[in-house]
Amino acid sequence: MNEQRLSRVRRLMEEQGLEQIIVSATASVYYLTGLWVSPMERMLALYITQKDCALYANELFGLEPQSGLELILHSDGDEPTAQLSRRLLPGKLGVDKFWPSKFLIALLEDRGDLVPVQGSAPVDQARMYKDAQEIEAMRRASQVNDMVMEQVILALKEGAKEREIAALAEELYRQNGGDRGEGLIVSFGANCADPHHGPGDAVMAPGDSVVLDLFMPIGRYWCDMTRTVFFRQADEEQRRVYQAVLEANLAAEALLRPGVPLRQVDRAARQVIEEAGYGSYFTHRLGHGCGLECHEPPDNSAASQAVAQPGMVFSVEPGIYLPGRFGARIEDLVLLTEDGCEVLNKLPKTLQIIE
Amino acid sequence: MNEQRLSRVRRLMEEQGLEQIIVSATASVYYLTGLWVSPMERMLALYITQKDCALYANELFGLEPQSGLELILHSDGDEPTAQLSRRLLPGKLGVDKFWPSKFLIALLEDRGDLVPVQGSAPVDQARMYKDAQEIEAMRRASQVNDMVMEQVILALKEGAKEREIAALAEELYRQNGGDRGEGLIVSFGANCADPHHGPGDAVMAPGDSVVLDLFMPIGRYWCDMTRTVFFRQADEEQRRVYQAVLEANLAAEALLRPGVPLRQVDRAARQVIEEAGYGSYFTHRLGHGCGLECHEPPDNSAASQAVAQPGMVFSVEPGIYLPGRFGARIEDLVLLTEDGCEVLNKLPKTLQIIE
Repeated sequence: MNEQRLSRVRRLMEEQGLEQIIVSATASVYYLTGLWVSPMERMLALYITQKDCALYANELFGLEPQSGLELILHSDGDEPTAQLSRRLLPGKLGVDKFWPSKFLIALLEDRGDLVPVQGSAPVDQARMYKDAQEIEAMRRASQVNDMVMEQVILALKEGAKEREIAALAEELYRQNGGDRGEGLIVSFGANCADPHHGPGDAVMAPGDSVVLDLFMPIGRYWCDMTRTVFFRQADEEQRRVYQAVLEANLAAEALLRPGVPLRQVDRAARQVIEEAGYGSYFTHRLGHGCGLECHEPPDNSAASQAVAQPGMVFSVEPGIYLPGRFGARIEDLVLLTEDGCEVLNKLPKTLQIIE
Repeated sequence: MNEQRLSRVRRLMEEQGLEQIIVSATASVYYLTGLWVSPMERMLALYITQKDCALYANELFGLEPQSGLELILHSDGDEPTAQLSRRLLPGKLGVDKFWPSKFLIALLEDRGDLVPVQGSAPVDQARMYKDAQEIEAMRRASQVNDMVMEQVILALKEGAKEREIAALAEELYRQNGGDRGEGLIVSFGANCADPHHGPGDAVMAPGDSVVLDLFMPIGRYWCDMTRTVFFRQADEEQRRVYQAVLEANLAAEALLRPGVPLRQVDRAARQVIEEAGYGSYFTHRLGHGCGLECHEPPDNSAASQAVAQPGMVFSVEPGIYLPGRFGARIEDLVLLTEDGCEVLNKLPKTLQIIE
């Protein structure tokens, strides 16, 4: 049980007028308890009040008791919410956003005095500001990512297939403590124009842009970086596009310091790309928070309500996508510090043409 | 929109006293509409009454209207439940079991006249009885699985690693229309004693049991089969264990016909293994329903309330696991017919010792 994080969550509960909440997301439960559970169809509910903290869990999860945390087990034959139902205070109950409705309905049928309300905010907001231990984990994950990216770029040879390069990246992550893998983006040539292209049988050809968007949890915390290189040659427009994306990335990172609204950072990056004449080809937000989940608060977009504050970690990933032709994206994870930001990815971003 | 399936669901709704339900599971929405959507954090809700059928969806899902289905879109900036909330009848609302609580809470805050109840049963029960189109899809998926398994067994050579064999199986699925892949079980020797062993760096050695549990959705419907072979030699106990597992598998399949409670089928298989002296080493249920999800109703276990009926598809997979030594499991998918069952996997099950 991480008492400091629990205190922070309790403070936020008080500010938000939440006397009791149920936390169920795997990453949120881990954040507070250090226990990583994927409950699938079974019930996992961390019940928090100002005084209590109890984990209701299926015995099949194989959890061990730990200090500061009451562990209350049920088995497959039981009504999973029965014990939790007896514990709840009457009135408002904050419920984690993805808790399956079947559990909430069972509670409501049993307890007519409950009023369920959205209850994820205290933990989601606490998780948005990484503490020292988390910052270390995220630095380490991005160090691994720098190394994986470097080796993957070295492996780009004539005849390489997207799928093989993605498999190599997964293998490198695995050798370096990566937890699991899926969905890496490796795109050649025209495929780069789809920002979410799934790696296929395309073979790298001279003149291709190569977009490598590599991400993985390492020790539970995600890294996430994109680099774009060119095979053998880059024509004038490819160089112009790359330069615009690079300048957008650098402009956004230069602007980041506590107090800056993230929508201004998105604006700054977008403006560089608009001025280069490619505004309508930058088709996604500038970035997303990253931590125990690859995508988590804060949102880094034109619509974001978030303001940069120390401890936030998010991606800065402008891109330009020219349908049927090519694309480029450059993405770093950044950590907000007291007076600016620390770019967690150290791999160079200057235009690279590989042989 | 599949009108026949919708009619079946409406009949079940009537029987169960449900005037209105919200269906949200990806496989259930696909079953009725033919649209496959993974909504992630966004909202997907198929609203069904005896008269209405409307799909509430985020515009980012890229869905096209189709006949017989009203499509009502919202965008990321909208309150996703707002339009649905206006449509709901007062009173009881059946809600799909895994619908994220955040949507249900938003509905309840807006509509004090709603009483949420468990609402998955009509679609789950309809899906338990496969129709002609589904039966064809499942036969085809298991045909592919027979072929993949045969090729994988042929590829078992000295020096083979579990992980490589699993990767080969995934590649073979992919070449034959497999949708995605994760979690295949390939175990050598003592690793076979863990029924859920994840493939690692173990190298096949003479005398090893080799458990191959291969499953994948092919055209949306899952196949799932296990075969156990031995490398170079099988000692007396390995042969005895294999024979007991085989006889348990055959005894269960021989018993299957409409009207037989599935708990009796589990009992029959377990009895064979008990009589061979390995009862305490058959540590899991006999099987699970299979279709659009790899694990779905009916449960095929000692605790199952289900009775075999035509159109059901489930696995029959007895196993014996001797910790630290070896293990064996034989699994087929079976389809219940009017007078017995059709074993969807045709690959032979006689003891196979590979060179």
